[in-house]
Amino acid sequence: MDSTPLPIHIGALLFEGFELLDFFGPLEMFGLLDTEARIIVVADKAGPVTSSCGPCGLAEVAMRDCAGFDVLLIPGGIGTRKAMTNTLFLAELTRLAEASRIVATVCTGSFLLGKTGLLDGRDATTNKRVFAQAANYAPNVHWIAKARLVEDGKYMTSSGISAGMDMTLALIAKLRGRETSLRIASQAEYEWHEDSAWDPFASASGI
Amino acid sequence: MDSTPLPIHIGALLFEGFELLDFFGPLEMFGLLDTEARIIVVADKAGPVTSSCGPCGLAEVAMRDCAGFDVLLIPGGIGTRKAMTNTLFLAELTRLAEASRIVATVCTGSFLLGKTGLLDGRDATTNKRVFAQAANYAPNVHWIAKARLVEDGKYMTSSGISAGMDMTLALIAKLRGRETSLRIASQAEYEWHEDSAWDPFASASGI
Repeated sequence: MDSTPLPIHIGALLFEGFELLDFFGPLEMFGLLDTEARIIVVADKAGPVTSSCGPCGLAEVAMRDCAGFDVLLIPGGIGTRKAMTNTLFLAELTRLAEASRIVATVCTGSFLLGKTGLLDGRDATTNKRVFAQAANYAPNVHWIAKARLVEDGKYMTSSGISAGMDMTLALIAKLRGRETSLRIASQAEYEWHEDSAWDPFASASGI
Repeated sequence: MDSTPLPIHIGALLFEGFELLDFFGPLEMFGLLDTEARIIVVADKAGPVTSSCGPCGLAEVAMRDCAGFDVLLIPGGIGTRKAMTNTLFLAELTRLAEASRIVATVCTGSFLLGKTGLLDGRDATTNKRVFAQAANYAPNVHWIAKARLVEDGKYMTSSGISAGMDMTLALIAKLRGRETSLRIASQAEYEWHEDSAWDPFASASGI
């Protein structure tokens, strides 16, 4: 019997005004798993989606045509604010998050996930420069100020922008072992912050 | 008279099999310049371009329809090997590099630029895991083994994948001042490796 593990199916969510590195940093780390990962880019509909920086991502498939994933990746970005007012989008996001084994957010992606109610009563973190806004969008979440990433049940939330890469390496370590993450970090010439409590940006933001 | 500096025009080059983070890491840092940067994604033709990890970038305009840029960004990736055999692509790349004020490469993007001959006689660096291959593609370049990034004239070359973010912050410091780069690194919650000689990945790769 073949003992090769099945590839990890990653559903990577796009919406207008997403933050480039929130999205593509994690996908680089997953991508270095090579045949052990399969990335599917999803959005409210297939086609180009413009980032907050200008350049586009390209969604392959509409959210409504997807069942759950092994990992649902939710980036942040200024576009989260508009997406949070879109009830159809939030309903699809809720369904996909419930149907996925692991849900991972970067930066203000946790605002979006928080808005669905799925983080209620749980620990979570977010971008430190807009930390004070978190409670407005999701008052029933226990927001952790000083953390690079926070895991609670099947939910993993990370701090701002670059933190998504550290979160993804933590996630890969969980799914494929620490040695795999060390290999990927070295291949990406990335200095992995393995300590989830490492967060100089909290105090730099006065929180 | 308005003393606001003109936005930096960045031409960001895509080709099939580009490495995601080589490309989008730098664009995140440039993007955080907000209205002080204008990013234009170029490729041999406009349209979707598939990365080595699977997800696509989207080129807005064909290389042949562009004059030079303030900064021409050349990512690496496994696709560089095929691109180096494409004489039309190399001719357009040479023209654009000559017409641009600054040319910046990430990872094996320096193989591509090296192949044009424009780095001949100059110092440059590249990805440390494939460092030994550099001299095959561009034997007249002085390849520096231990460096996060190398600047020689208008050419800035950086080490593997993640090094593009440090290079971009160095470039922004040069064009807009160090305080701007510190602000952007903090906003991106990115630990900037400001020392261009910082390179633990060289010895890790046995070079």
